[in-house]
Amino acid sequence: MSPYLKTITPEEALSILMDVFQPWYYDRKETVETLNALGRVTASPIFALRSVPHYHAAAMDGIALKAEKTFGASEKTPVRLLLGKEAFWIDTGDPLPEGTNAVVPLEEVNQEGEWVELIKAAYPWQHVRLAGEDVIKGEMLFTSNHRLRGEDLALLVASGVKFVQVKSKPRVIFIPTGDEIRDPFLDLAPGEAPEFNSVLIGSMVEEIGGVFKKIGPVKDDPSELRKTLEKVYKEADLILINAGSSTGRGDFTKMVIDENGRVLFHGISVMPGRPTLGGEYKGKPVLGLPGYPISAFVAFKLLAEPFLSAMLGQIPSKPPVIKAILAEDIPSRLGIYEFVRLKVFKSKGNFVAHPLPRGASVLSSIIKAEGLLKIPLQSEGLAEGREVEVELLVNPEVVERTLLIVGSHDLSIDIMADRLKKTYPPIFLITKNT
Amino acid sequence: MSPYLKTITPEEALSILMDVFQPWYYDRKETVETLNALGRVTASPIFALRSVPHYHAAAMDGIALKAEKTFGASEKTPVRLLLGKEAFWIDTGDPLPEGTNAVVPLEEVNQEGEWVELIKAAYPWQHVRLAGEDVIKGEMLFTSNHRLRGEDLALLVASGVKFVQVKSKPRVIFIPTGDEIRDPFLDLAPGEAPEFNSVLIGSMVEEIGGVFKKIGPVKDDPSELRKTLEKVYKEADLILINAGSSTGRGDFTKMVIDENGRVLFHGISVMPGRPTLGGEYKGKPVLGLPGYPISAFVAFKLLAEPFLSAMLGQIPSKPPVIKAILAEDIPSRLGIYEFVRLKVFKSKGNFVAHPLPRGASVLSSIIKAEGLLKIPLQSEGLAEGREVEVELLVNPEVVERTLLIVGSHDLSIDIMADRLKKTYPPIFLITKNT
Repeated sequence: MSPYLKTITPEEALSILMDVFQPWYYDRKETVETLNALGRVTASPIFALRSVPHYHAAAMDGIALKAEKTFGASEKTPVRLLLGKEAFWIDTGDPLPEGTNAVVPLEEVNQEGEWVELIKAAYPWQHVRLAGEDVIKGEMLFTSNHRLRGEDLALLVASGVKFVQVKSKPRVIFIPTGDEIRDPFLDLAPGEAPEFNSVLIGSMVEEIGGVFKKIGPVKDDPSELRKTLEKVYKEADLILINAGSSTGRGDFTKMVIDENGRVLFHGISVMPGRPTLGGEYKGKPVLGLPGYPISAFVAFKLLAEPFLSAMLGQIPSKPPVIKAILAEDIPSRLGIYEFVRLKVFKSKGNFVAHPLPRGASVLSSIIKAEGLLKIPLQSEGLAEGREVEVELLVNPEVVERTLLIVGSHDLSIDIMADRLKKTYPPIFLITKNT
Repeated sequence: MSPYLKTITPEEALSILMDVFQPWYYDRKETVETLNALGRVTASPIFALRSVPHYHAAAMDGIALKAEKTFGASEKTPVRLLLGKEAFWIDTGDPLPEGTNAVVPLEEVNQEGEWVELIKAAYPWQHVRLAGEDVIKGEMLFTSNHRLRGEDLALLVASGVKFVQVKSKPRVIFIPTGDEIRDPFLDLAPGEAPEFNSVLIGSMVEEIGGVFKKIGPVKDDPSELRKTLEKVYKEADLILINAGSSTGRGDFTKMVIDENGRVLFHGISVMPGRPTLGGEYKGKPVLGLPGYPISAFVAFKLLAEPFLSAMLGQIPSKPPVIKAILAEDIPSRLGIYEFVRLKVFKSKGNFVAHPLPRGASVLSSIIKAEGLLKIPLQSEGLAEGREVEVELLVNPEVVERTLLIVGSHDLSIDIMADRLKKTYPPIFLITKNT
């Protein structure tokens, strides 16, 4: 009785997208200055242009000498070397003078006028930082598909690499649709809706390393959507159409994609997030994301995030997971993979999880949540007291330090929470209203 | 016999800095557009300017009516309502018409000309998204000291909040010192050193949410350092002097701080990172960071990161931790808290950790490392085969998928690693050279 072509699991949907579009082979690239390359992904291997250090350097203050000349030195048979000819005062970081291969630390040297006296043999290359100890000129520093961190940039700079070839940021075009959609900062009449999903999705796109552009909003009119797609598809690596992917009267995404490409799947067995569509428009990947923010968030996380990450040769990082005890029963429908938002806190050494409102329209439920519980397809729900794995949406450290107050809404508690956060941020006070 | 005033633990050093400078009370602030506030930290509580939704909205397609008029409806006693007067066709998201308080879904309605017939009572507010279901106008959305995520911005936008008051980014001034320090992209003579610690430290500062500025390099000359500090201290929330905090002939940080402020500690019991200095220069916090990159990295992580985070009311997030088996003995000195870089991979279901070179000068050791092992003060080392807790420096998912090759350096393996990363990024090939 599903109005969708055929509902499939999110794993199947992702695997269809990966097979059809092969995002691992995405290869638009550009050259940027190393100093501007933080977070970018290498498009080719990078080789060192200079050894680090680029010369044999003293690793201590002392004298530089040829170790072989000290062999046999002892208290009874000290070795004497002429300063400026056989032995040279040297500071940490100085280059070793020609013909020397070791450094004897300050405190082991007796100076007598022009001479130094040693009562212990030095071994070759002692207290020397050899040229290339850190990096050897010509060495491969990074392979392709490496996301550059601050320390990586420092190593590149140390190795004399001023420019790097990186993958161009995948271009994500986001098209909000709907007659009721308005600029969010206008005064809105009843029936008008502020457009804010672009903010949610846009920040996730940029976090992954893509570049985000909003086009629209577009009215609930197939010809307008058709025109917009025709205008933007060439400049997109991924097109997201927001709302209109369901099966209601104003939902034209399927129709428009069918005309100029093909629908690959329509409907995924996830709640929230079910009315999600995947397709191809003139060779470009298109996702129809549901209109409700939590549904759009879940569909993006399940499909768009791994897809964009693959373009950049990356795997999305897994969120930290903790084990928590459910404080309430959570019923769930068989055959649906469900995302439940939770408040999580610590009580008597255990984490305890309280489910938040499950409506797909309630954006604040994801903001108030510390954790996410995924109820698998084949489960009919989870009972109070059961231990579950919770993906954290916040710094684990925060959960450890959180004080939860459950009860009816009381503004004075908000004010207390603000005071506490202002004067002593290491303790968090949160509330769950009943 | 330590040349330092008195070596203290990093915990003691941090607690001195926190006591003297009270970074929790940092309160420079500014107003920014919500759309530009990703990652910024609120400086005051933020209140909703609009309810979300701002009107009672239909949550399904169907007819809107007054629930009370359907009471008693059954198959035997259906209720008939006049369309356009008592019942109104409505789509999801539409405002409820005046005088109605419930929605009956399409499939439960029989239309007969001007009339609809209902055989089941509706209950008040069924299938209605109540005004304020998500957010109530005037509600406190976020307390002070909340770091704004993408979903938070979406909620602010939905609630009509166009501007937010955020903490100004703490200004970190970084002063590299040393006669040998040069622009890293020049051709360098032996004895000249490329400046690259600013790249390492700068990206960490920006990651935390600070703004980074490099001044210099400054020569090994106390009067130059004095002049530079005098010029910049007013515009700094934290001053980092790089190198010159040790006790050698060219190390003037302590002297210059002593003249115009006070040294709070000199030397911390950490390796690498020991020659670290903390002080006050005309009321501003100053850290002298060691010159070797790994030492500077460790000292920054231990002291500057929590200090800057506190200014923003945040706690640094803990890296993910795994348990791994040591593949080699790691000796360590009693009384020193030591950071060892490790290569980590999975073998027969267990994580195995190989120590990397321990020199403080070898920046590549932190780049090649997947993990960090902290050997506590009171340990003389750890034995091969022992299980240890390793802080991961990479996405845990990467470690799960890593193939380690140990042996002498072979360029063809680098090329294989690059090929693999290019054509099938989900598997990682890494090498440890012996």
